[in-house]
Amino acid sequence: MAIKLSDTERASLIRDCPAWTHDSERDALTRTVKFTDFNAAFGFMTRIAMQAEKLDHHPEWSNVYNSVTVTLTTHDVDGLSNKDCDMTRFIDALVDGSANS
Amino acid sequence: MAIKLSDTERASLIRDCPAWTHDSERDALTRTVKFTDFNAAFGFMTRIAMQAEKLDHHPEWSNVYNSVTVTLTTHDVDGLSNKDCDMTRFIDALVDGSANS
Repeated sequence: MAIKLSDTERASLIRDCPAWTHDSERDALTRTVKFTDFNAAFGFMTRIAMQAEKLDHHPEWSNVYNSVTVTLTTHDVDGLSNKDCDMTRFIDALVDGSANS
Repeated sequence: MAIKLSDTERASLIRDCPAWTHDSERDALTRTVKFTDFNAAFGFMTRIAMQAEKLDHHPEWSNVYNSVTVTLTTHDVDGLSNKDCDMTRFIDALVDGSANS
C-alpha cells in the first residue's frame, strides 16, 4: 500500500534526488535520461517496466529516440509516496550502473 | 532511406489511417491506444520497439499505465515518409490482432 510522504520525508526525498525536478503543484518528480541510441533507451525502459510491475507502481513516461523522461507520483495518495522513493532509487541505480551487477 | 510522401500519397495514408490524427503543422500522425493494464500496454510498446529497430524508424511516444500514445513522423525528411506508412500498418495490425499470428 502506498503511504503519502510527510513534509519532512518529501524534503528528504527531494534532497536525495538531485537529478530529479520536483513539480510542487502535482507533487511529482521528473527525470530525463539520455542514452547512446534507442536500443539503450528502450532497454532502460524495459528494466523499469518490470520493476514497475513488481512494485505495482507505474511511471508516466515518454521516449524520443535516445531520450527517456520519467515522471513519478502516486495517484492513490495524490502526490509522492514511499513507492516513489523506491522507484527513484531503482532508476538512479540503473543510470549509475550500480543495478547492472 | 526515407522518402517524403507526395501530397497524393499523404492524403492516401491519412485516408487509410482513420484511427490516427494528422497534425498538419508537424506533418505527423498520432494514435492513442488503451489496453486492460500496464502489462498489455508495455507488451505493445515492446513489439513496436523491435519493429522500430528493424526499420530504423522510431516513434515518439508516451505511456501512462494502460494508455500508449504514438506519434510518427520522419525527422530526416521533415514530415511523413514511406517509413511512417510501414509503421502505421504495423501498429494498426497489432491493435487489430492481425499481427499476433
